[in-house]
Amino acid sequence: MASMSEFDDATVVADDGTTQIHDGWDINGNANGGYLMALAASGLRRIADRPDPVTVTAHYLAPGRPGDARVTGSVVKAGKRFTTVSGALESGGRTNIQVLAAFGDLASNAASEFVSMNGAPPDLPPIEQCTPREANGAVPTALMNRLMVRLHPEHTGWLRGERSGTGEMAGWFGFADGRPLDTLSLLLVADALPPAVFNLDIPSGWVPTVELTVHVRAVPAPGPVRCVFRTRFVHGGMFEEDGEVWDANGTLVALSRQLALLPR
Amino acid sequence: MASMSEFDDATVVADDGTTQIHDGWDINGNANGGYLMALAASGLRRIADRPDPVTVTAHYLAPGRPGDARVTGSVVKAGKRFTTVSGALESGGRTNIQVLAAFGDLASNAASEFVSMNGAPPDLPPIEQCTPREANGAVPTALMNRLMVRLHPEHTGWLRGERSGTGEMAGWFGFADGRPLDTLSLLLVADALPPAVFNLDIPSGWVPTVELTVHVRAVPAPGPVRCVFRTRFVHGGMFEEDGEVWDANGTLVALSRQLALLPR
Repeated sequence: MASMSEFDDATVVADDGTTQIHDGWDINGNANGGYLMALAASGLRRIADRPDPVTVTAHYLAPGRPGDARVTGSVVKAGKRFTTVSGALESGGRTNIQVLAAFGDLASNAASEFVSMNGAPPDLPPIEQCTPREANGAVPTALMNRLMVRLHPEHTGWLRGERSGTGEMAGWFGFADGRPLDTLSLLLVADALPPAVFNLDIPSGWVPTVELTVHVRAVPAPGPVRCVFRTRFVHGGMFEEDGEVWDANGTLVALSRQLALLPR
Repeated sequence: MASMSEFDDATVVADDGTTQIHDGWDINGNANGGYLMALAASGLRRIADRPDPVTVTAHYLAPGRPGDARVTGSVVKAGKRFTTVSGALESGGRTNIQVLAAFGDLASNAASEFVSMNGAPPDLPPIEQCTPREANGAVPTALMNRLMVRLHPEHTGWLRGERSGTGEMAGWFGFADGRPLDTLSLLLVADALPPAVFNLDIPSGWVPTVELTVHVRAVPAPGPVRCVFRTRFVHGGMFEEDGEVWDANGTLVALSRQLALLPR
């Protein structure tokens, strides 16, 4: 078998939907939410028979632990431009995530050429001046050995217990093994940085994702992407986190939003 | 039968899921997307047996026309705080929308009291100084007879062919018959204003919603709500529209985001 990248290997799904939640894509033992979404989408896009996840929504129902898993799903509608699929990733007798997604072909899409952009990539120092997520050891995770995540130094005060009070987390993202980014991997990017609320004075503890939606807007160019995640509104025990992902050409390649819970 | 509000009447779903897509909730004959979401959620929350739609995602697959319809769905997980349901609204042999949603009880939810708000309600003139959507006749719709929608005068230049170039649409929302807003009706609010892209120089034509997600963050206080919808990024034939809905007490009660298509 040809050598594959770590991400490709970790998102293989067989024709019958059987797969593995791979070890080493976790935060303290629980598989990363973006990884679970990418794994499910890897199986569902085969069912859709279209290459790119254009909009994917996942509800997070049970933590994913390494081991045997299965992607199930069915086509709701195969349209002219998108195929909509409803499905799930299941393991250990539980549904880890329930998914509703539309797949398309972004590269060959003959779309309107109208462009209007009110925004720009986050202003980040060069990669070598940004902070490796794992550097300070505050959140040592196996996941970070597979990823090249470098945070804006001004957004890492929480690693030293100094929270800025602004719910923003920006940084660079790539794969540690140099695998180029594609549309599937943008689902992982959408949940790969530390939560933006770590820069707010929230109660400490786990901040579980209820729901995550990712819009993949374009095929990323080669090179690392710049991301920024922002939480503006925390109340009622809930908050949103909105993400933007920009490729090396300065193209917006994904938007994400999740609903998450404060520790109780 | 006791007299009900127009919205309550239009979102009745029987125990077996049978319902009606009611006339008069349309834009040029196609039922409004927020109304379809509210109708589906009305049926699905009974299946969930929890009152409030907390996060609802709908994929729009076929236009809804007045007539017999059915809400189908099943519980994916009934958890401690939320019940997740997968379902659909179907009519005329087609799936109008496919839905993935989590329901909870926002009023009785014993949540963290931590609050951090980086944002405020849109700055709107008083209702009587805002512009009725139907006033200028550019988009005469039956829907607007049922709703009290008043737009920020600075966002209505498109009605006169004068587009501001900024993808923003803000306004007041209430029901014309005075029905108080509840969490179900916030799903309607999320799609009730004219598209924010009407203030950009987009090609003219229908801008179909691919996917809409609404987070209901709190039970609205009595009185009309203030909303703002923004589109920042239009490229590749697609755009997002992000909405905020604020109640009369200045509480953020809903966030929405949709992925929509430019005319081709």
